[in-house]
Amino acid sequence: MDIAALRTAHPEHWSKATAIRALTLDAVAAANSGHSGMPMGMADVATVLFSNHLKFDASAPLWPDRDRFILSAGHGSMLLYSLLHLTGYEDFPIEEIRNFRQLGAKTAGHPENFLAHGIETTTGPLGQGIANAVGFAIAEEILRARFGKKLADHHTYVIAGDGCLMEGVSQEAISLAGRLELSQLVVFWDNNNITIDGTVDLADRTDQVARFKASGWDVQEIDGHDPVAIDAAIAKAKKGKRPQMIACKTHIALGHAAQDTSKGHGALTDKDQMQAAKEAYGWTTGPFEVPAEVKSAWEEVGRRGAEERFAWEGRLADVSDRKREEFERTMAGTAPKKLASVIRALKKQASEAGHSVATRKASEMVLEVVNPVLPETVGGSADLTGSNNTKTGDLGVFDTDNREGRFIHYGIREHGMAAAMNGMALHGGIRPYSGTFMCFTDYARPAMRLSALMQQPVVYVMTHDSIGLGEDGPTHQPVEHLAISRATPNTLVFRPADVVETAEAWEIALTQSGTPSVLSLTRQNTPAVRRDHKTRNLTEQGAYVLAEAGSKRQAILIATGSEVGIAMEARDMLEAEGIGTRVVSMPCMELFAAQDDAYRKRILPAGPVRVAVEAGVRMGWDRWLMGERGREAKAAFVGMSSFGASAPAEVLYDHFGITAEAVAAQAKALL
Amino acid sequence: MDIAALRTAHPEHWSKATAIRALTLDAVAAANSGHSGMPMGMADVATVLFSNHLKFDASAPLWPDRDRFILSAGHGSMLLYSLLHLTGYEDFPIEEIRNFRQLGAKTAGHPENFLAHGIETTTGPLGQGIANAVGFAIAEEILRARFGKKLADHHTYVIAGDGCLMEGVSQEAISLAGRLELSQLVVFWDNNNITIDGTVDLADRTDQVARFKASGWDVQEIDGHDPVAIDAAIAKAKKGKRPQMIACKTHIALGHAAQDTSKGHGALTDKDQMQAAKEAYGWTTGPFEVPAEVKSAWEEVGRRGAEERFAWEGRLADVSDRKREEFERTMAGTAPKKLASVIRALKKQASEAGHSVATRKASEMVLEVVNPVLPETVGGSADLTGSNNTKTGDLGVFDTDNREGRFIHYGIREHGMAAAMNGMALHGGIRPYSGTFMCFTDYARPAMRLSALMQQPVVYVMTHDSIGLGEDGPTHQPVEHLAISRATPNTLVFRPADVVETAEAWEIALTQSGTPSVLSLTRQNTPAVRRDHKTRNLTEQGAYVLAEAGSKRQAILIATGSEVGIAMEARDMLEAEGIGTRVVSMPCMELFAAQDDAYRKRILPAGPVRVAVEAGVRMGWDRWLMGERGREAKAAFVGMSSFGASAPAEVLYDHFGITAEAVAAQAKALL
Repeated sequence: MDIAALRTAHPEHWSKATAIRALTLDAVAAANSGHSGMPMGMADVATVLFSNHLKFDASAPLWPDRDRFILSAGHGSMLLYSLLHLTGYEDFPIEEIRNFRQLGAKTAGHPENFLAHGIETTTGPLGQGIANAVGFAIAEEILRARFGKKLADHHTYVIAGDGCLMEGVSQEAISLAGRLELSQLVVFWDNNNITIDGTVDLADRTDQVARFKASGWDVQEIDGHDPVAIDAAIAKAKKGKRPQMIACKTHIALGHAAQDTSKGHGALTDKDQMQAAKEAYGWTTGPFEVPAEVKSAWEEVGRRGAEERFAWEGRLADVSDRKREEFERTMAGTAPKKLASVIRALKKQASEAGHSVATRKASEMVLEVVNPVLPETVGGSADLTGSNNTKTGDLGVFDTDNREGRFIHYGIREHGMAAAMNGMALHGGIRPYSGTFMCFTDYARPAMRLSALMQQPVVYVMTHDSIGLGEDGPTHQPVEHLAISRATPNTLVFRPADVVETAEAWEIALTQSGTPSVLSLTRQNTPAVRRDHKTRNLTEQGAYVLAEAGSKRQAILIATGSEVGIAMEARDMLEAEGIGTRVVSMPCMELFAAQDDAYRKRILPAGPVRVAVEAGVRMGWDRWLMGERGREAKAAFVGMSSFGASAPAEVLYDHFGITAEAVAAQAKALL
Repeated sequence: MDIAALRTAHPEHWSKATAIRALTLDAVAAANSGHSGMPMGMADVATVLFSNHLKFDASAPLWPDRDRFILSAGHGSMLLYSLLHLTGYEDFPIEEIRNFRQLGAKTAGHPENFLAHGIETTTGPLGQGIANAVGFAIAEEILRARFGKKLADHHTYVIAGDGCLMEGVSQEAISLAGRLELSQLVVFWDNNNITIDGTVDLADRTDQVARFKASGWDVQEIDGHDPVAIDAAIAKAKKGKRPQMIACKTHIALGHAAQDTSKGHGALTDKDQMQAAKEAYGWTTGPFEVPAEVKSAWEEVGRRGAEERFAWEGRLADVSDRKREEFERTMAGTAPKKLASVIRALKKQASEAGHSVATRKASEMVLEVVNPVLPETVGGSADLTGSNNTKTGDLGVFDTDNREGRFIHYGIREHGMAAAMNGMALHGGIRPYSGTFMCFTDYARPAMRLSALMQQPVVYVMTHDSIGLGEDGPTHQPVEHLAISRATPNTLVFRPADVVETAEAWEIALTQSGTPSVLSLTRQNTPAVRRDHKTRNLTEQGAYVLAEAGSKRQAILIATGSEVGIAMEARDMLEAEGIGTRVVSMPCMELFAAQDDAYRKRILPAGPVRVAVEAGVRMGWDRWLMGERGREAKAAFVGMSSFGASAPAEVLYDHFGITAEAVAAQAKALL
């Protein structure tokens, strides 16, 4: 590249873009780790986007109608941090840039939404950002339809790299966005032809332009260092009727000795080479120093959207009080008061009726009463709508001709679905839930982990949660998946036993602000075990005494979901033999773990033998069986220790020995 | 569809294809579950493929040079079972068809490779089959290059549905196959426009033809019910120079009342409708009855390849003894004797030298001595070659101009990589291993589960296995991933402490025949803890006493990987205070669990307090801390209970309290 020509052609643009490059080089050198080349390569695109197009106000990072900027190529985090610093975001003074990648800094190795305002999503695991962006764009469409263009009308811009586009989840995102004609979604592809291992063609020769077109996108191809071309492409993209991809031919580590090489992808810390690059740029200030006029030009960019924001605030003030309050409640993610009352009414009705239904059906019963009073819920399924029971009567299908629809046919795209839900939750104004089979949490796993890390209250409706799925066999039968979900920090895993517990689990999930929930639900019917109506949400404590010992307590049986009924049967057998037996229902281990010692000891007192029963692996159970510090009780577990098999559900429960007889026998063996 | 016209146009073909449709209807009706429509829709394609092209001999299902047939749309399992029954596979008498989806049957809900010969891979989780197929095709290319066309020259045929093509993993598979120009791979797309929720365009409008072309495939579009067109397309595909996609326009549940509807996707069990369909087909025999002449025509198909097989066996007999023995050893997956000796030599050298290296580097040291003596290993990385240390000097890169290369640049495609490795292992003749960061086991998870279910000895080289990864931060730091891997049945999870343990872990992994291994390896250096050379592989017992208490045993510290050094330091502190402390290194929990009680009690005797230390979540540890049945010991755990953070590794270990001081303090608190 002829750096000199770039410098002279657009001097003001050049100095702004160079500020990004210089800060990147300085921060990576100080941290002695990170990725220099990507920010250096995409600085021009980002400079034009922020300077001329992105609707934002650095002083109001939470303005609901701002455009969203998503750095899917999250390793290039210094691009984002530089922009946030330069445009004047309060969370990003120069000290944060100096402190790049150090403990406690807002400038973590990869952008983390929960550390600072201005970071819309957490990226780094490749492909997630572009898939989140689909959710952001859906959320915007729905809010625009619901509240009108005056309150919601913004774009979602994404920078994606070659890595993002190689990850399978990108295909799920691209094809879903194309199908839904998300015209306010604009993806910049950083086409630098470099990955960690070498040039892209070592591993990939996909014609990305043709690929995006095949999924219904408009595509433009430009020189990613030409500010005029960049500007024109964005202007055109903003007017498109379909999702927009702008393929930007760039040079990674532009102007550095490592330009256009895989070395340029990583940390460029050689002092002489840094100095040489800065000289070529015409950048003469010291490390972390930005010339006053350049900083001032950038700060002007940071203020550019203030007027538009004031106008938006005026429009918000002008709408009816009712609409404004509803908009604000929705964006804040606060559940309406009515939620508690419809849940309570359903619990009362269900405890009286004593339905024996599958908990996936119970979940549908809950959604039927919840969705009408929570207009912010957006449901969906990965092509298992009838099986996941996630579509209620009033939702309508979100589609090109119905942007108010609240049910999304995600297609057979569990991973893209989960990542899109993350995007909706991050956008705000939407409370997303969606379903697939519990076993296919595997496919969604990278995005489910990010729900937890990003502190987003997404609800995963995972049905067919054990060998109770039956004939579809071991490929479809979760065995280790409860353990996997429970092993993940900041995740609530609910395995409710009947309609009442399912309603309680949903109530908790829908009132979370910073924690995702996994609802593990049965395919098969389960008996009603909560026949005695209690206003209080017993699931909130994670575990509680469902049935007390009829005589001196010698055994405690602990169970979840479809196995609570089995534990109750086993209790009958033991009591008939004079063995006093308590049954503890434990719909949520994480909530039980969060209770104080006194409560936990009250539910699981030391002494009586303990048998846990769950149609999954033992992992995760020992803590409740033996006590945190050991020595509390003799204990046994009845569950799975291998993959399942293909046969009717009842046959499998017998075959794998998950029966009341087995539970009772284990208890007796311990006594 | 005009069924009558189809019947009369090609009567012999029609009756063969109809046998598949009738058996499918009968088996699904008997099971009262399953998927009727897909086999009914693709019966014509399958009939032509098996009758005219597929190189196979039903009496020799393990013939190494057979063509591979992979039903990626695994829910249509009755298509495969019908074909295997009709052509005369020993494992598939009519009783198996009658017993569809019942306990103990070889005809599980979805095809399971480990139940019967003739099933090449386990499918059902969508997209896996097409991704496996890439591995099958790579294996064939490598074996052809290594042993010559006379011994290896076959095709891999795949039937994939709309669901397979919507899953992101299909994009990873397609783009990798296109890049590698796998010309002996032929994919039939069952273009029936139906998914469970409705027509495909509910969720997808991707132009699949354009999409495959964008990744370098040749594509043909045909009527999937026209046997002449099908035959011509396959003939043409076999001559192609690139991977081949044949888009087959089909009617799901052809000839049934549910044809072309999503109902047709599922179990069609209505008796009258079944009867009507059979009448339209001209099929007059009773349930599970195939007219003798039709069965005989199919059995002839099953014998069609016998001559070719005899010829192949003749060619194998003609090669040198050395080559034949090597071919047979390779296909059998038996490790050469030299493996043990190179491992032993490395262990001796390493225990003497006392290298303090990262275990990912230790793994490279092992591979440097192993790869030259195991020509069947095929390594790779998902674009982290230099970080995963999986490429040794002698491997060469597998590419279009080097089919003997044994290192694969999989690109940023962890899921596709894992699925391709499954395919290579299933094909036989290849022992695949490959790497990414441990945290990104999340992306590969659906295929890793299938390695375990399918009993394939794939080796996952997962580096950067804790917060020791440092500045890249929590998106890249595994916390729950050891628990996830350990929760999965039939998986060996190794977390070796130093070069010696790493060599032992590799030796075990490379001699497995039915179990995958996950090697969890550090980014950062670890001290040598095995300084005393032992010929015996101590890792084989899963855990062993690394250091005995210097005085009366009061505490046992248990650790893995990078934390073994910490445990040794803590022991020094405790011993200095007169507290006799044993250190147990536990590189593989699964192997320890497989030891007899006596051994386990010898290593972990009841009584002394126990402290485990591992830079991951506690889940999975309690069993070793408190004992299987509880009450064995007072215990504590030092590890992670949240996501990590972005900072240098040493800072993080201090910040999260994973230190020798903390371990010693926990032990003292329990005493």
